[in-house]
Amino acid sequence: MTTENVTETEHEAITELREHLRKIALISHASTVLSWDQETHMPSSGGGVRAEALGELAGIAHERSQQPALGESIERAEEAAFASGDETLQALVREVRHDYERSLRIPVEHATESAEVNSKSIMAWQSAREQDDFSAFEPMLSRQIELQKAEAEYLRDDEDCLYDVLMNKYERGMTSANFSEICRQVVPGLKGIIDRVVARALPEPEFFRGPWEKTKQLEFSKEVATQLGYDLDKGGLDLTSHPFCTSPVAPFDVRITTRVYEDNFTSNLYGVIHEAGHAMYEQGFEEKWVHTPLCDAISLGIHESQSRFWENDIGRTEAFWVHFLPLMKKYFPRILEDVSANDMALAVNPVKPSLIRVDADEVTYGLHIALRFEVEQALFSGDLQVADLPSAWNEKMESYLGLTPPNFKDGVLQDIHWSFGAFGYFPTYLLGSLYSAQFHQAISEEIDIDQEVAAGRFGEILDWLRERIHKPGRQFMPLDLLERAVGKGLDPAIFVDHLDRKVQSIHGV
Amino acid sequence: MTTENVTETEHEAITELREHLRKIALISHASTVLSWDQETHMPSSGGGVRAEALGELAGIAHERSQQPALGESIERAEEAAFASGDETLQALVREVRHDYERSLRIPVEHATESAEVNSKSIMAWQSAREQDDFSAFEPMLSRQIELQKAEAEYLRDDEDCLYDVLMNKYERGMTSANFSEICRQVVPGLKGIIDRVVARALPEPEFFRGPWEKTKQLEFSKEVATQLGYDLDKGGLDLTSHPFCTSPVAPFDVRITTRVYEDNFTSNLYGVIHEAGHAMYEQGFEEKWVHTPLCDAISLGIHESQSRFWENDIGRTEAFWVHFLPLMKKYFPRILEDVSANDMALAVNPVKPSLIRVDADEVTYGLHIALRFEVEQALFSGDLQVADLPSAWNEKMESYLGLTPPNFKDGVLQDIHWSFGAFGYFPTYLLGSLYSAQFHQAISEEIDIDQEVAAGRFGEILDWLRERIHKPGRQFMPLDLLERAVGKGLDPAIFVDHLDRKVQSIHGV
Repeated sequence: MTTENVTETEHEAITELREHLRKIALISHASTVLSWDQETHMPSSGGGVRAEALGELAGIAHERSQQPALGESIERAEEAAFASGDETLQALVREVRHDYERSLRIPVEHATESAEVNSKSIMAWQSAREQDDFSAFEPMLSRQIELQKAEAEYLRDDEDCLYDVLMNKYERGMTSANFSEICRQVVPGLKGIIDRVVARALPEPEFFRGPWEKTKQLEFSKEVATQLGYDLDKGGLDLTSHPFCTSPVAPFDVRITTRVYEDNFTSNLYGVIHEAGHAMYEQGFEEKWVHTPLCDAISLGIHESQSRFWENDIGRTEAFWVHFLPLMKKYFPRILEDVSANDMALAVNPVKPSLIRVDADEVTYGLHIALRFEVEQALFSGDLQVADLPSAWNEKMESYLGLTPPNFKDGVLQDIHWSFGAFGYFPTYLLGSLYSAQFHQAISEEIDIDQEVAAGRFGEILDWLRERIHKPGRQFMPLDLLERAVGKGLDPAIFVDHLDRKVQSIHGV
Repeated sequence: MTTENVTETEHEAITELREHLRKIALISHASTVLSWDQETHMPSSGGGVRAEALGELAGIAHERSQQPALGESIERAEEAAFASGDETLQALVREVRHDYERSLRIPVEHATESAEVNSKSIMAWQSAREQDDFSAFEPMLSRQIELQKAEAEYLRDDEDCLYDVLMNKYERGMTSANFSEICRQVVPGLKGIIDRVVARALPEPEFFRGPWEKTKQLEFSKEVATQLGYDLDKGGLDLTSHPFCTSPVAPFDVRITTRVYEDNFTSNLYGVIHEAGHAMYEQGFEEKWVHTPLCDAISLGIHESQSRFWENDIGRTEAFWVHFLPLMKKYFPRILEDVSANDMALAVNPVKPSLIRVDADEVTYGLHIALRFEVEQALFSGDLQVADLPSAWNEKMESYLGLTPPNFKDGVLQDIHWSFGAFGYFPTYLLGSLYSAQFHQAISEEIDIDQEVAAGRFGEILDWLRERIHKPGRQFMPLDLLERAVGKGLDPAIFVDHLDRKVQSIHGV
């Protein structure tokens, strides 16, 4: 895994390949900034041209990513990487080859149209959601599903179904059969925990309602993110309706966004920690591999494991509040006067079925994913039509969580993902929790996590992740990365046990 | 000037041309957003890649702008425009031809390198200014001058000198001989006014120091800009160290930035009005001509006339404060308790030599321009070397304004312009004042400006500008536009008289 024994010629071949990658990355960089701007600062009247520009850039990037010259350069780099015996270089060219082969299968027109439709469709979703009007989004959603079906056809190898092709875009090697099995193992465990807690649910503590002054919330959560290890000098924090993390160029410019409400500080605080977790992952790539797949996430499940680790396994613990409550009391002395770290831990770990995924607690969250997974599968198998989506959604919501959405925006219109054509994406959220639980278990064997966190020391924990999870980028496939990091394969039981113990220790049931 | 008599074939030729222009504009759109982001939100660690990306995009845009297919399309469009007899179309193709011919002369490598050097050089200037270290900026400045000399050689027709070629980039038809003559007419007048006021200068009123809470300043100035006619739904307001206006896509997305200090509200308020004036110009282009030269500024002098008109001829008047003081008192009731509109008018119209151009008053401002004009001429004629620039600057500062900068950042390093290669640009600021004074005179003949402003009615005034100045875009050359709008040519005496009267009425001398 060193690059010391690479000869001059081998080095040249890699350098030449990287120049190709750089030319593609610069265009993607522009697209990423444009998309970030669209979500954060662009006035709505700029949307039409923005969509066209994103389509145009996607076309250019796509053209560059399927040039024959790139293919030839990859061949030379493959020979060089093989000759060098360098594992990192071999992984690099393997991943470049992967992207190239896939790019070749997608016609430029499809890439251009997709980017343009995405940009427009996000705007359509936003306005449909605001007006609580599913029918206003339906045509765009149908178009997105058509485009994604077409893309899955282009990319299909030996996958059992189109939906598996899409899942693979986000989580290499994952199939709907595997994920069904994971759900089969996880869902009953979650339901069991929920039943136990809900039976003796505590009311939300009075202090929780605030009001929490927005600017103070933002300052506090920014300070928390910084202490955890998010480097704001290589990023930034902006306000949006839907929080996200985006990397104009990893690891040098990795930004997060958040939202803030006066009557609830958790949305902002845990949103920021969550996105900072994502950002720390991308800030942890090795600078020297900028513009290459080694400065890229191997999968969204691994990505999500980093956000969930910091949000749930660090942020929603009593130890976290032992350290951070005194700081938060400086911002909100009156409201938090009589509140203890233990009160906080209990308050920020409710277990209660609810309608909105992003506001869901750690336990019920998995059920939101199971719902979406089933709905998406049905949409792509043809078992479900877009027009019937709202009723399918509501039925599953009733069966998984015992709730019926009173409107579209708290139901089928709540998530942004479908608006940008991301189907097969939701399962990675649950996978993230599974990975995170396993990382937590492995770190615990080396580090006393609670002791470090309570003392406000996050460096060793972050270093563990940096070394094993962040630095490799796309060098290892998700399950290999997991195995190398924790010494065993994916095991849903670890996640369920982990949650079970946490709920017992906090809720006492 | 109608497009009603255009035939199908003519229409097709224009449509085809516009498709070429659109493909160029989409790339420029991306560059503009990237540049805006660089100034407003990008972390400094993202700067290296950003510079490369801007270079890459400039290369693509430049390649597209000199394609032979574009040349052929222009020919067909020229025939169509000629046949149609439509003056607007004729102006459109004339301007497209102008850009095309100039683009052909600039090698793609030069365009790419310029964009990349600009982006890096802005960062070098920022850090040199922060560290007050001219030598840290000197190499980049020299490189910029070399690049601009090369560009002037490429673009040179029959201009007397390279500097005239550069002036022409910003103000079509302007020469250094003309501008010298303007300075010759204006400078003595300004000096006379300054001497009169300085002799009996009033101290800055006590209330002026504030402290002015920043968020309140921002809210107030935003409301002022909106009332004047800046449409925030087609733009946005952000914070930067150097205020500017930029158009990702005019007239749909025209943004401004500002800065804000607690001890001085004028920097923010008049900065916002100034940039809003620029923005209203670009928001006033006709939507149907998006991506064409008819949705573009004819010159920076005309652009500046719009910012100066709103800032100085509207914003710095007693009538303005008759209307806006009550609103400002809502934000700052304690500080402004005993302040009258007349007090305000006096306070915001100081006349006092100072070091910083952007903070200079309306009268001394012109002297800052004369200084820069002479220095730039000398740099491009070879009479002045970059290394000698600081001392040349300081000498002229002493002779024009009787002041010696105590450091570089309040002297030769104060302006951003040279860092992005903008030489020949400063004269347009003074030209803007000249145009503005003439527009003011012409509007006064039709509209009682003070009466409208005092009543908070800005619509008629804006409409006058919209119709005569904004809507045409690049249809008419600057001096033609002026003549059509006010019925006479450029006359520096009108500006000097205008200032003279204003100073008399406010300062009583």
